[in-house]
Amino acid sequence: MQVAMTADELQAFLTSDFGQVAADFVVESAGVEGITLRLAVEERHLRPGGTVSGPAIFALADVAMYLAILARIGPKALTVTTNCSIDFMRKPAAGRELRAVARVLKLGRSLAVGDVMVFSDGVAEPVARAGLTYSIPPER
Amino acid sequence: MQVAMTADELQAFLTSDFGQVAADFVVESAGVEGITLRLAVEERHLRPGGTVSGPAIFALADVAMYLAILARIGPKALTVTTNCSIDFMRKPAAGRELRAVARVLKLGRSLAVGDVMVFSDGVAEPVARAGLTYSIPPER
Amino acid sequence: MQVAMTADELQAFLTSDFGQVAADFVVESAGVEGITLRLAVEERHLRPGGTVSGPAIFALADVAMYLAILARIGPKALTVTTNCSIDFMRKPAAGRELRAVARVLKLGRSLAVGDVMVFSDGVAEPVARAGLTYSIPPER
Amino acid sequence: MQVAMTADELQAFLTSDFGQVAADFVVESAGVEGITLRLAVEERHLRPGGTVSGPAIFALADVAMYLAILARIGPKALTVTTNCSIDFMRKPAAGRELRAVARVLKLGRSLAVGDVMVFSDGVAEPVARAGLTYSIPPER
Repeated sequence: MQVAMTADELQAFLTSDFGQVAADFVVESAGVEGITLRLAVEERHLRPGGTVSGPAIFALADVAMYLAILARIGPKALTVTTNCSIDFMRKPAAGRELRAVARVLKLGRSLAVGDVMVFSDGVAEPVARAGLTYSIPPER
Repeated sequence: MQVAMTADELQAFLTSDFGQVAADFVVESAGVEGITLRLAVEERHLRPGGTVSGPAIFALADVAMYLAILARIGPKALTVTTNCSIDFMRKPAAGRELRAVARVLKLGRSLAVGDVMVFSDGVAEPVARAGLTYSIPPER
Repeated sequence: MQVAMTADELQAFLTSDFGQVAADFVVESAGVEGITLRLAVEERHLRPGGTVSGPAIFALADVAMYLAILARIGPKALTVTTNCSIDFMRKPAAGRELRAVARVLKLGRSLAVGDVMVFSDGVAEPVARAGLTYSIPPER
Repeated sequence: MQVAMTADELQAFLTSDFGQVAADFVVESAGVEGITLRLAVEERHLRPGGTVSGPAIFALADVAMYLAILARIGPKALTVTTNCSIDFMRKPAAGRELRAVARVLKLGRSLAVGDVMVFSDGVAEPVARAGLTYSIPPER
């Protein structure tokens, strides 16, 4: 099995199709089983106490799984999230980038399911975990 | 039973403690059973096709439940989300504000649980629903 | 809008197609918006301390949503659960029946989404809540 | 780090404290990171079409995570599930046992979080995945 899009192609796709958020994310690697995506933490991602906000971690997990699916099926921009269940387990370390490791567990004709682990750089234990489902648009 | 914070107090708390996102949200009403919160949809909340992004809907649900809990227990800023399961059910109507109705279902000493329905203005059927759990910091 | 199956028809369907569990459940009412289903609590549903077990509450929520969907679309037995997120909020009262109120929030061509609240008889506050997604088999 | 309970001790605990379900489950292995638990599939676990029912898969995931936590903290029977989000991804293979691999991701003073993958014997791709949270009773 081969990827339909490489890490560079996924990054270019983010820039062309998701211009408003593309600068936040760096595709570190992409393979058949999944991808690794980084969030460059900025002031606007933070909550009181210096913690990265839940919505910023959610966005990282969501974009990571989206790109992991596109790595398999190609640039179908209209693939959409239908469910996400996310557990926030630990405060991210302050001043560190976050890294999401997304894994495709099922790739059906109309639904894809996967999970994501989110880590702070340099810390072994995960910050968050999520299970996500996406709806894939039918072929025309 | 009485609320610990009114809609105006919740709005003021957002501005003082969550300056970077406070402008996005308007507390429409607050009561013992829950609150209604609006998201003023901006360009930065959108995805390809003009849909409000998943992370923006997640943020609306998350902030709505957080404020619904504070309406009951007062301004404990360090109350944190531990789990959210969200179903994205329909595309939000383009050019309409989103409205979240958050309801507290359990308020324990250390955990609070609730659910949120998200609507597009002028459309009866919900855009999204979520169940959320929060950890409440112990009294000092 | 009209239901495709009445409470009596749903009960008869349970007996004919789910013989091994039908005796546990009673369809109390069925309408377009949802159904109410009871679990007659038996010894085998209990955990240490007399609490109804998580799996028994899950089964009640799952069967309730399944029947709420069939009330709308008719007896498509192969409709299957794809996701359930359930919050267990309170111990059920000992020696009381459990009642699930299931509501269909989205009924698409291939996916249905809903939520369920589970109550102990005679207690106002819910025991559990769940959001569920079902996959509906395509028409032949 | 060492386990607080071995596979044999977990199995004995199931028999003494969960007599009504103990016969369904076999603890295959137990370690610091998690455990492997088998469900011996019986007629009563099946749904139309010979598929293992959702509630039976839920019970397997729930018991697996419960025992994975007890393997770390010892026999605190009153540890209870507070949330489970489960994705049912594939039909289990007919006539095969199911195997759950449970992993503890966070073990806090009052909350534990983990995930579970469920497999049919002899099939590489998972049948289901779940994220679960448990509340641990305080020390007396």
